[in-house]
Amino acid sequence: MNHPLRQHIEEIISLTDEEFDFILSHFEHVKKRKHQYIVQENEIVNKEYWIIKGCLKSYFIDDTGKAHILQFGMENWWITDYESFIKRTPSKTSIDCIEDSELLYITFENREKLTAQMHKMERFWAKKSKVGRIALQNRILSLLKNSTKERYNLLLEQYPKLFQRVPKKMIAAYLGVSRETLSRLTP
Amino acid sequence: MNHPLRQHIEEIISLTDEEFDFILSHFEHVKKRKHQYIVQENEIVNKEYWIIKGCLKSYFIDDTGKAHILQFGMENWWITDYESFIKRTPSKTSIDCIEDSELLYITFENREKLTAQMHKMERFWAKKSKVGRIALQNRILSLLKNSTKERYNLLLEQYPKLFQRVPKKMIAAYLGVSRETLSRLTP
Repeated sequence: MNHPLRQHIEEIISLTDEEFDFILSHFEHVKKRKHQYIVQENEIVNKEYWIIKGCLKSYFIDDTGKAHILQFGMENWWITDYESFIKRTPSKTSIDCIEDSELLYITFENREKLTAQMHKMERFWAKKSKVGRIALQNRILSLLKNSTKERYNLLLEQYPKLFQRVPKKMIAAYLGVSRETLSRLTP
Repeated sequence: MNHPLRQHIEEIISLTDEEFDFILSHFEHVKKRKHQYIVQENEIVNKEYWIIKGCLKSYFIDDTGKAHILQFGMENWWITDYESFIKRTPSKTSIDCIEDSELLYITFENREKLTAQMHKMERFWAKKSKVGRIALQNRILSLLKNSTKERYNLLLEQYPKLFQRVPKKMIAAYLGVSRETLSRLTP
């Protein structure tokens, strides 16, 4: 059976066995338990993660101590603090595991090396980055335009599986409302 | 003197004269007057624009008829509806000129050709896409975390020139408040 990362990359570009082995040699494998961090606020993030199995959340704490969830991550998603990873600045967000998780990561240096040597991988990540940008743009449109109820329904429509895996209080922190407000809005 | 697009690209990658001529041959030059559109809602967008001179806004109209500004664009910025441009779906946004503007554009087909042939340009746009993604992520953090007053100050800090070029009612539409609310918040 094909490696799951190979299946994932081959949704965009096709690879020979040699090419995939070369790509994979730039990654490390890691297991994390529920509640463990992969990114902590204020550190310079040197790794981009790809989720083999598990569920994670990226979030930040505002000045009043309230947590806001920026993004969830599940199987086949890439996750890190991209601003810190790309600009080499302290991370504004933290990322931790909602479930026991199995991940692959690539360091900044290895990613630079790999994309410099393999135009195909530059193309792959360029495509992924564009798709990520579109998702963020739609999140902004939705924050500006939709009510909490509408944003809840959009999230449910887009990621039905998330609702079986993530506690309601985290859905509330993603939507930017209290747990109580969410309860009033939803069945 | 160097072409402004060459200066812009060479902030990230260096080019020979031949390479730049080859790149430029994929672009077309266009002038637009104030109030003219470069992207209209519901069309499939086939061009990405680079602003030589001028000021534009990307926006959408919600169900109640209220306009929300997603992004402003000025000299050296790339602008289009990226979801439509990349996924070939109808545009959710419109983009029009706040001032008379001079632009370069590249079609979807030419951009695909150019990036397939020149790893350097794939690299350039990959970098630009990452930076765009970071800007969007920060806009989300700010929408979730900051008050209108704080968001006004952040915008002023980040793009001081914008405030001399753009009417206050557009700043309000970007911040998601009424013109009256903005007046109460600002000097």
